[in-house]
This record gives sequence, C-alpha cells and structure tokens, in this order.
Amino acid sequence: MTKELGIGIIGTGFMGKAHAFAYRAALAAFPDIPAPRLEMIADVEEGLAARAAHQYGFARSSASWRQLVNDPRIDVVSITTPNTLHKEMALAAIAAGKHVHCEKPLSPSLAESAQMVEAAEKAGVVTQVGFNYIKNPLLKLARDMVAAGELGEITGFRGIHAEDYMHDPDGPYSWRIDPVGGPGVIADLGSHIIGMARFLLGPITEVSADVRTVVKSRPVGRGAKERKDVLVDDVARILVNFGRGCGGTIEANWIATGRKMQLGFELTGEKGSLVFTQERLNELLFYKAGGDAKTAGYARIEAGPQHAPYGQFCVAGGHQLGFNDLKTIEMGEFLRAIGGGERAGPDFREAYEIQKVVDAAIASSSARGWVRVG
Amino acid sequence: MTKELGIGIIGTGFMGKAHAFAYRAALAAFPDIPAPRLEMIADVEEGLAARAAHQYGFARSSASWRQLVNDPRIDVVSITTPNTLHKEMALAAIAAGKHVHCEKPLSPSLAESAQMVEAAEKAGVVTQVGFNYIKNPLLKLARDMVAAGELGEITGFRGIHAEDYMHDPDGPYSWRIDPVGGPGVIADLGSHIIGMARFLLGPITEVSADVRTVVKSRPVGRGAKERKDVLVDDVARILVNFGRGCGGTIEANWIATGRKMQLGFELTGEKGSLVFTQERLNELLFYKAGGDAKTAGYARIEAGPQHAPYGQFCVAGGHQLGFNDLKTIEMGEFLRAIGGGERAGPDFREAYEIQKVVDAAIASSSARGWVRVG
Amino acid sequence: MTKELGIGIIGTGFMGKAHAFAYRAALAAFPDIPAPRLEMIADVEEGLAARAAHQYGFARSSASWRQLVNDPRIDVVSITTPNTLHKEMALAAIAAGKHVHCEKPLSPSLAESAQMVEAAEKAGVVTQVGFNYIKNPLLKLARDMVAAGELGEITGFRGIHAEDYMHDPDGPYSWRIDPVGGPGVIADLGSHIIGMARFLLGPITEVSADVRTVVKSRPVGRGAKERKDVLVDDVARILVNFGRGCGGTIEANWIATGRKMQLGFELTGEKGSLVFTQERLNELLFYKAGGDAKTAGYARIEAGPQHAPYGQFCVAGGHQLGFNDLKTIEMGEFLRAIGGGERAGPDFREAYEIQKVVDAAIASSSARGWVRVG
Amino acid sequence: MTKELGIGIIGTGFMGKAHAFAYRAALAAFPDIPAPRLEMIADVEEGLAARAAHQYGFARSSASWRQLVNDPRIDVVSITTPNTLHKEMALAAIAAGKHVHCEKPLSPSLAESAQMVEAAEKAGVVTQVGFNYIKNPLLKLARDMVAAGELGEITGFRGIHAEDYMHDPDGPYSWRIDPVGGPGVIADLGSHIIGMARFLLGPITEVSADVRTVVKSRPVGRGAKERKDVLVDDVARILVNFGRGCGGTIEANWIATGRKMQLGFELTGEKGSLVFTQERLNELLFYKAGGDAKTAGYARIEAGPQHAPYGQFCVAGGHQLGFNDLKTIEMGEFLRAIGGGERAGPDFREAYEIQKVVDAAIASSSARGWVRVG
Repeated sequence: MTKELGIGIIGTGFMGKAHAFAYRAALAAFPDIPAPRLEMIADVEEGLAARAAHQYGFARSSASWRQLVNDPRIDVVSITTPNTLHKEMALAAIAAGKHVHCEKPLSPSLAESAQMVEAAEKAGVVTQVGFNYIKNPLLKLARDMVAAGELGEITGFRGIHAEDYMHDPDGPYSWRIDPVGGPGVIADLGSHIIGMARFLLGPITEVSADVRTVVKSRPVGRGAKERKDVLVDDVARILVNFGRGCGGTIEANWIATGRKMQLGFELTGEKGSLVFTQERLNELLFYKAGGDAKTAGYARIEAGPQHAPYGQFCVAGGHQLGFNDLKTIEMGEFLRAIGGGERAGPDFREAYEIQKVVDAAIASSSARGWVRVG
Repeated sequence: MTKELGIGIIGTGFMGKAHAFAYRAALAAFPDIPAPRLEMIADVEEGLAARAAHQYGFARSSASWRQLVNDPRIDVVSITTPNTLHKEMALAAIAAGKHVHCEKPLSPSLAESAQMVEAAEKAGVVTQVGFNYIKNPLLKLARDMVAAGELGEITGFRGIHAEDYMHDPDGPYSWRIDPVGGPGVIADLGSHIIGMARFLLGPITEVSADVRTVVKSRPVGRGAKERKDVLVDDVARILVNFGRGCGGTIEANWIATGRKMQLGFELTGEKGSLVFTQERLNELLFYKAGGDAKTAGYARIEAGPQHAPYGQFCVAGGHQLGFNDLKTIEMGEFLRAIGGGERAGPDFREAYEIQKVVDAAIASSSARGWVRVG
Repeated sequence: MTKELGIGIIGTGFMGKAHAFAYRAALAAFPDIPAPRLEMIADVEEGLAARAAHQYGFARSSASWRQLVNDPRIDVVSITTPNTLHKEMALAAIAAGKHVHCEKPLSPSLAESAQMVEAAEKAGVVTQVGFNYIKNPLLKLARDMVAAGELGEITGFRGIHAEDYMHDPDGPYSWRIDPVGGPGVIADLGSHIIGMARFLLGPITEVSADVRTVVKSRPVGRGAKERKDVLVDDVARILVNFGRGCGGTIEANWIATGRKMQLGFELTGEKGSLVFTQERLNELLFYKAGGDAKTAGYARIEAGPQHAPYGQFCVAGGHQLGFNDLKTIEMGEFLRAIGGGERAGPDFREAYEIQKVVDAAIASSSARGWVRVG
Repeated sequence: MTKELGIGIIGTGFMGKAHAFAYRAALAAFPDIPAPRLEMIADVEEGLAARAAHQYGFARSSASWRQLVNDPRIDVVSITTPNTLHKEMALAAIAAGKHVHCEKPLSPSLAESAQMVEAAEKAGVVTQVGFNYIKNPLLKLARDMVAAGELGEITGFRGIHAEDYMHDPDGPYSWRIDPVGGPGVIADLGSHIIGMARFLLGPITEVSADVRTVVKSRPVGRGAKERKDVLVDDVARILVNFGRGCGGTIEANWIATGRKMQLGFELTGEKGSLVFTQERLNELLFYKAGGDAKTAGYARIEAGPQHAPYGQFCVAGGHQLGFNDLKTIEMGEFLRAIGGGERAGPDFREAYEIQKVVDAAIASSSARGWVRVG
C-alpha cells in the first residue's frame, strides 16, 4: 500500500475547511490508511489561500487551481468550489492522474457529470463525492440491518431533507438560485436524501414528482425593492419506486421554516422499522416486531464503539460524533480506497446515478406523471 | 334551545363504546349543550345490546336497529357499525327525522355517500362524522394560527397516518380488507389525515398518488395454509395541491411496523411551522421565525386550559386529554349543533368531500398522473 | 357482590368534577364493579351544587355536606374539599357507615390523619385517597416488572414532581400557602412522588432533606404592594433510603418555571431501567441490559390494551388515556373494593404512611441530618 | 503573542488520542491562537508511543515521560495518564517551566492537588484540566443567560452524571475501583457535574450527601469465582447549597443501567428555565416565562454559528459538534491562554475547588449531615 499521499484542496470556504479538518484527522482516526501529506491549498483570492495554508497546516498555497492539479507532489485533489466549476477542475485533475474528491452536486447537468464519470473511469483514478451524511456509523448499521434481512421485506421509505435557509421570501437572490448552477433544492438537498435512499435500499427506478418554485421572485440584493424572478425549485416532493419493489416518498425543501437539518427517514419492513434524523445523528430508532407485546417499542440506539468506525474516534459510547467526524470518515475511506483498500464510495458514478433521479424527478414534474430513471 | 335529546347508539363494539363514554361525559364537560338522555342501544346480538345498555346506562336495548331509528323518544342516532351498513341505517334514521352521527368512512362508495348527503340536507337534520382527532384543542389552535396568518403564507404540508395492524403478511384475511367495504387504508386511515389537512388548510384540489397493495395475499384464517388475494390497498402515497396554492404529501399506511398512531403532520409557512403527531396528542411544536437567533427553536406547547375546550375537562395544564376526551368534545359539539349552536362538523358533506379526495387518489394511481378532485 | 352503590360527592371544584366524570364512566369501563348510582352532590354554595347535580347527572344536590353523609341512599362519599375540612367530613361519613374516598393530602397533620385511619379501620369501611397518577396502566406495568425481578436488584430511584404554578414571586398569597392547611409543596406535590416511589419500591425508611421557602413573601393580593411572609415550603429535596436497601432522591417543587406536570422518575436496577414522566403519561422507557449491543437502547413502550386496564377504555393501542381516565380507573378500583373485590388502594393508611415520609423530611430539614420515618 | 508552541502528550490511551485530535484541529478552528507544533508523545510502552507519534503526526516519541517534560522544544505538556501519576508528572513539567494540561480528576487526594496548584501558581505557568463538557457552545450560552439575568433569580439546580459502565455486579475488579486512585464515581463522573454546576452558578458552599457502594464485591477477574471487596463509591447523591443562595441536588452514578452519557441538568429561575443533557449535546431547552400562554413552551435551541465558537467548526447550523470538537475548543482556549489571551480555564485551582466539593460530600456522607465545603 502507498505510504503517503500528497493532498491538495481547491477552495477555502465551508467545505474547504471541512476537508482540511478531515485530512488533518484522518490518519489519527484510521491507522491503516496512507498518511495524507498536506501539500497545497488553492483559492482565487491569494490571501485566503495563504491564510488557509497556515491555518490548516498545508505546506504551500496558490491562487491557481491549475497549478495545484498539476503539482507532481500532489496525488489527491479535493474540489470544494461552486458546482459550476467542478467539471473543468475535475477533468484537469484526472488528466493529471490525480485521484479526485468532489463536493456534491457533481455538476449542473447530467451531461457534464457523464463526462466526468467517463474521464475518471477511463483514467482509473479513485473518485469520491461528498455525500457525507451516509458515513454515519448508525447509517452503516441501518444499511447492514436491511441487507441482513433484520427488517424483513422492506415495504416503505419516507425520506426528507428539509432546511430553512431560503424560507424568507425577502431573502435576496444569490448564486445559489442562479439556474446556471443547475436545479435548486432538489440538487442541493435532494441529492443527499436520494443518495441516502440508494445507500440503504438500492436503485430508484421510477419517480413521479412535484418540483416547484414557491418564492417566485426575490430582491436583487438585501433590502432592495427590485425583485428578480426565481427559476429554480424550492420544494420537491417525489413518489418513488425502488428496484427492489417497494415504494416511498422523498422530499427536498429549503423553505422549511425552523428546520436546520431535517435529513431523515422512516424505513419500514415487514419485521421491523428504522427511524433516523440527522437532527440527532447519534441516535437510530429501531422497532423489532414479534417481541413481548408488553415491553415492545422503538429502541433508541445510541452510537458507540460497537458501531464501526465510531470506535476510531472514541472508545466509549455516548460521547457522540459531529459533522466534521463524518467528513473524517469520508476522507479516511477515500484515502483507504486510493491505497488499495475497499472503494466505499460514493464515487462519481454513484453521484451520476443520483443525478439521474434528480433529472427524472424534474422531467416527471413537467410531464405530470411517472418517469423512469435513466 | 332544546333541553334534552334522546340518544340511540347502533353497535356495541370499539366505537359503540367510545360513543357511550362520550355521551355520558358530554354534559359534564359542556354545560351549555342539550342534556343527552341515554335511550337505547342496539346490536344484532341481543345479549350484547342488553349488557351494553346496563353497562353504559342506556334505558333500553334492542336487537333491531330499525326499532331504534324509529323510536319516538330518540332524537339522535349514532351509527357505529361496519361501513357497509351505514347508508341503509342513516337513510332510515334521516327518514325518521333523526339527527345522525355516523362513524367514518361514511360508506364504501362515493355514490352511496352522495345519497346520504342529499337525504340529510333535504331533511335538514344535523349530521356528524367521526373524525375525532381534529377535535383536539391543539389542532383547533393550529387551525386558528393558520387562519390568523401567524405562520405567514403556507408553503407545505407533510401528513401521514400510519399504523401497523396489518403489517404481518401472515395476518389473516378479514372483513377489513373485503373490497365490498370500499378501499383499504386510504379510506380507513387516509380519510383521517386528509380530513385533518382540509381542517387546517382547506380544500385539496388535485392529487397524484401511488396506491398499492403490498401484501398480495393473506391466509384465509389464522394459521391457514390457503391464502386469498388481497384486493385493497395497504399504502397510499399522495402528492397534493391545496386550493390555497400550496403543495404537500399525504401518506396512509397500515403496514407501518411499529407505529400505533402515527397520525401527524408538518405544516410549514413563511413565518413559522407546526409539527404534530397524535402519538403525543397533548403537544404541538411551534417554530416562529424572526426571534432572537440565539434562543430560537421549536417550542413544545403543552395542552392546557388556555386551549379551549381543554379547560372543560381539567382546570390545570399538563394533566392531558385522552382519546375518549376527544370523542367527548366531538359529541358535545354535535349536541350543541342540534341544540341550535354552531355546526362545527365535520358533517356528511365534509366526509363526502374527503371521500372525493380518496377516490381521486385511487383514480390517479391508475392513471399514473394528476387527477382533479371532484 | 353489591349490585349498586349510591354515590355522594362533597365539593364541585377541580376534583369534584374529576370525581363526577369518573363515576359516570366507571361502569362503562369496568362491567364487573357495582353500578354507581349518582345520588347527591354538595357544595356550600347551593347554586353550584344544584348546577353540578344537573350537569353531572346526580339526582339531588345540597348545601349541607352533613345531609349528604347521613343520607341513607348514599353508600359512598367522595371528599374533594380543601384538606382542612377532610377530617371532620371523613369522620362523619365513617360514623354514618359510608365508604370514603378522600382527596390528598389526607389532612394538614399526621395526628389528624391518624384519627382518620383509626376511625376507618375500626368501622371497617373501604377508604381510598386520590393518588391518581399511580393508576396509570404503565405504572402498574412498572411495578409488576420490578416485582418480577425484570430489572434485577434495584439500585436507585430518582423521582420528582415539579410544576410552576407558584413560580412567580409576585403571585399573590392564597389559601394554598396558608400553613393552617399543612406543609407546602412537599405535601401538595411531594405526596404524589413519595406515593409513587412507595407504589413501585415499597417503604421509605429514612430521609435527609432540604425543605425550603424560596419566595419569602408574596403580595397580599394580585398587584398589591403589601406583602405577607410565606411560611410553607416551595421546594423539597430529599435523600431517601428504601426498606429494600436502595437509595434515591425525591424532589417536590412548585416554582419549577416551565413545568406543568413533571411527575416522573428514573428507576435503575442491575438488569434494567425504567424512565417515566407524567408529561408523556402514555409512554414508559425501558432499558434491558444484556441484549445485542448493536441494537440495544431504551425502548419507548406505548400504552395499549396489553397493559391492563387500558383495554377497558379502548381496544386499540396508541389511542391514549388522559387524566380523567386515570381517575376513572381509581374510582373503578374503589367501587370494586367496596363490592368485595381487591382493595387496590391507596387507602387512608397508605396516605398516612406517605404523610409520615413528608413529616420526617420536614423534621430532617430542621435537624440537618437523617431522620427515620415513623 | 507567541507564534508557535511545542506540544508533548504523555499517554496514548482514550484521552491521549483525544488530545492528539484536538491539537491537530485547534489552529484550523482558531486562527488567533499560537500554532501547536506536535513535538513528542510518550508512553511507557515504547511501541505504542512510536505508533502514536506516526499516527497523530508527532515529530518524536519516547518511553520516558521525564524526557518529554524536560525537552526544550516542548512548551506544553498534556498529561493523560491514570490520576495516580498526575502529581509527579505535573510537578516535573512545572519545574521544567512547561504549561500543563492535566486530565481530571487532578489527583487522588485534595492534599496532592493542593501541591499541584501551589506549584503551578508559583511557577506562573498556565494550567488546564479536562472538564471538556463545559466547552460546549450551548453551555456557554447557558452560563451567559444566567449571568445576564435572563432566567431571573436562580431557584434550583438538579444535576446528574450517570453512566452504566460499572452496572454489572459481575464486572471484574479493576484499577478504576482501586482506592489508591481516590474516590469512585463521585470523583470520576461527579467532578464533571460539580464542575458544570460551578461553571453555571458559581461556588457550592455546603453539601449533605449519601455516597455509597452498591456493588459490595466484584470478581477478581472476568469470570472468576473469587471476589474482592469494593471500597469506593458507586453512587453519590448530594444536596447542595450554592453561594448565590439557591439549593439543588447532584447525582453521580456509574451503575445507571442503560445510561451512556446522562450528564445534564435542569436549571430553574424565577423567569425561565434551562434543560440540558449531554445525550443530546447540540440541544438546549429554554423556557421563558411571561410569553403568550397559548404558544408558550420549552424551545429546543439547536447549536449553530450564533453560538460561539460553533462557527469555527461549521458555518451552518444543524451540522452538530461531537465530543472531539469539545476537546478542540478546550485545547484552543488553553493555547490561547498560553499565548496571552483569556484564561478560560478550568485551571488546576478550579479542579481543586471541585475536589473540595467531592471531599465535603464524602465527609458529609460519613457525618450524616451537612458539611461546609473547604
């Protein structure tokens, strides 16, 4: 196995920092992975890049992402820029033989994502996309329980990812709702819950959706009188069919006033059920049918070292993981895959499959009926 | 106002008993209503009727519901029998000039329900249908808050009524799933959450649904090897449009393993949100946008005398109402309406409107696209 | 078994109404008990008594409680007046050969309560005291689980009854804090949680307490400038020893801002634990040691017909009981005992034993050390 | 301000790793602190030390803690060994002029801790002790709300730290319960909740406690028949008086079957209340008296960037911090203090003050009455 991997991060914002935390923690958590060597961080604003390099412990900084992707000491590139930039950066990094981690959504359009998948697979590099929430040890438990048949035949899934950062109709127009970046909430949050559904239950084969813009216009700036039409969706409600035969619903919503992180699901099987919400990410509710009726009930499972890889962070239960720990698991798995270990993904192809569901839902909403995915 | 009303109940089962409790408690809770005089209870099994009369304090019993509906000392008839029998009983009672309370669903088919509505409205009698859950003081509060604009423009509704009494695929075939009684869960539980959605937000105008049978066959009897095909639905998932402009989803599910009473919703508006589940019927969560960010959060409202008519049951907060209290509120409002007070409903017409949504959802599921209601 | 029992209630306030609801519902819930015949209700205000008699369905009313306790058609007397009046009424009722239900606390002082116990036991009448919360089917389950050893050796109890009706230091002086009525919160709320502890775990043998007055004075009336010294306790915190060997703490608090009904406990044993709060009276949390570590956790047990006598109120789980249903169970058990069935209590003697703990705690607080109970 | 600080950690176990994670993340979270330079990690087992140095990114390793504390390139020493070793290591580090972070409890006895405090204060080095839980942004919010009077006069505190790692009476005897290490749960967990109480409300001046050994003997090894007497406490229940005038209770319990991290409190004031449990460390419940009665209730505050220093980890609310993030805040504050910034503590002296409360509680339990602290 490779002993060390040179790391480069493009972008110093929310996700750039999260990647930095994760790379800094990854080896401490996972002794079996190649050691990340923090080589370079890039940002169009040179000062930001330099400051970030110091703060996050990277050897060098650059205002040029091209310099970064072509640096011979760099083996791994993390792309944390706005998604309109992903394709160009990813293709360049792949062309330079780098392994690539890219934040989601992969790109504004399915066609662009297809190019990225093709390039990556042709080059044989390892890719990963930032669907961090499924790295939760309790979601791995959930997936394993489903796979082991502990819930029996699965009969339903009811998923949602709702937050409220766009709920105020007087919140100003921004890059986030510029259609050049692709769809709205269905791509931004919807991709998380669609990915989670796929992680747990496998492919979604068919959708019938209502994807709509609720806040029809927004001020051109904070407090501005002039308003601009909003062209992307605020809420997506989707009826889904899974390839395994069961049905479900999925909602993505960024105007869900009050919700900061309502990413969750109820997953129902003939023999049991699971309930999860990222609002309490260290808990999983489990109901097992057939027990003593007097004392049956949803058990609140608390994350602990019995749920790998929680124990890599803390040997005692109840201490709890946070968001940045999920990101560390994600990076640990990515580096392990590059080192020759299991490719846990989700890789570019999986992100592309998720995007197909997004696209099918949008098409379905226009067609006002069911549409097959892909 | 009428001083007293003679009461007759048809049926001595689950709902017959609930009505008896409610009529016994109604005047104690609501001094302003006509006093119910417990006249007669009927059941095809004479012994059950006689025993019930003694136990519930009715003056007389009968094996003949016809005798009951034609008894001159009876002013009010409660129909708590299986829904295949509702129409005949209701029409006879109406013909005899009685006010009629009928359990839901009103009848197996929209056509029959239409007849019932027509007869009742022509006769001018007061009718009510057993959508008991919306009698909750906290749901009245929710409705009032919506109506008063406290949540701003409403942007979404996510409702569900899920239980698990049919989750076991080896649970035997029963009257409950005989299609002669109408649809499956969409009528049995779906009508509750559809009714609740209408109570809170007004008419649903359009639906796109996936209504499906998951357990395709069931043993003809407990433990039997022979199985019989199931023809009614186990799960209904519905995209909805409200007349007021907002969208939402509604699910009805009787194979939701682990759930005993997951009847609830999230209701989101530009300025606030409400979350409710009948699993904790004395609580309502309320998020109000725009407060101090440091201390903002969902407030857990606990039912108390400040939420009418809770105070009719208990002068102190925190003591909690139960299911039978909701039924008492329902009967209290029904008797008040008969006495000339407000007709709070839901009456036969409202039940008919709810059934239209059920029918539209079923039609939509076949058509695999949106269908207008009514 | 006696076929019928004539009922008389003294008092038409909060508890008078609760008793009326309960007597009206008792036979409908419990067919095996003697039928209560609602004979008379008394109140010093004649108009209130008359109105209550009509509203609650009692045959007669009276302004004289003496008339009531001496009425030959009355077999059972419910005393729901302020506790300064209990003794005189109870002794008169007992002298007249009546069975007596009395609200808690039994009397302002242990000596008076001793007289009441003695009189009742000498006369051989059935007595009961209104510790309604332990009538919850889930608390019966808890008690049975403890008794059956399902939690193993019990190692701790952490109980509380906290509400906030006295939290405002500008809330006026009232009868509730007049020391003529006995101690403050330790009697009013403390007796509930002490009674619950005894119900679950048996006698408390020793206490060390801090019983204190926090709001030292209150306005003589609402808005008044003049203030009057408060002589009774607002908070009691008690270290306890149970006769069975385990320790615990108990708190009673009526200035617990925000709490409307925080009556609950954590009960810990070597093999399992239970957690309960009356705020969610239809739920009991149960942790069972020794299961599969991956899926272990507190199970949320929801009340259902498997928890007797829930099924007497509703045949389906999840529907929930309310406060008045607990009161109905209480009255049902009382009437059953009078009819010759099990004396479930708590009777006058048990109330007296609870009061001994209250008194010992007060004595302990003065002595600043441990005091034996009784 | 110092630009860089050389870091040495003694110990590679649970806490050694937690310190390593924290030092690795501290600068990334807090750009204003001196940059930690990871110099050396020591462990009696040389192999462990070497492996940890590689994994955690330390430049060197050693089997000798003395070498570490005397290394001139090291400015800061973290002591994460068993508490019997703390004093010797801390005194040596202080003698070498190092700043010292030491895990809690500071030492097995008050006398030893006093020596440590004296040495540190004389030397003028910065010290800190690992009371990590109070580093939670929501606890800083709680403390600030109390200090700002948002809850009015504080009237009560009900704290607990309960876990279950010792609940099994057949769990073997271990170093943890060897009295050479000091008291039992009251030191191990009790110090956390006592420290939290002091953090929020200030000094505890008086205690009356019941400190007891419940599991009287344990097998000498796993599965062994021979048992050894247990001499340290399993449960401590303490009545407390705060210097500010209010009372409360504190419990420490390591046989609380089912609990993994029940570290929490209810804090009640005349105008409001707070409820917290480390089981849901990203939530704080807040009740504010005096609002609209219809919609009043406990607000569930979710941690977000409005609660400093959450925003240093993540710019968006709802993402959640985990245990290791709290540790990072702790180390960040420690390094900032060394660099000349605010000494946020808790320092050796505060740990010593906490230990005084522990000792007073033990003395009180023997004396069976109140004991003044210190």
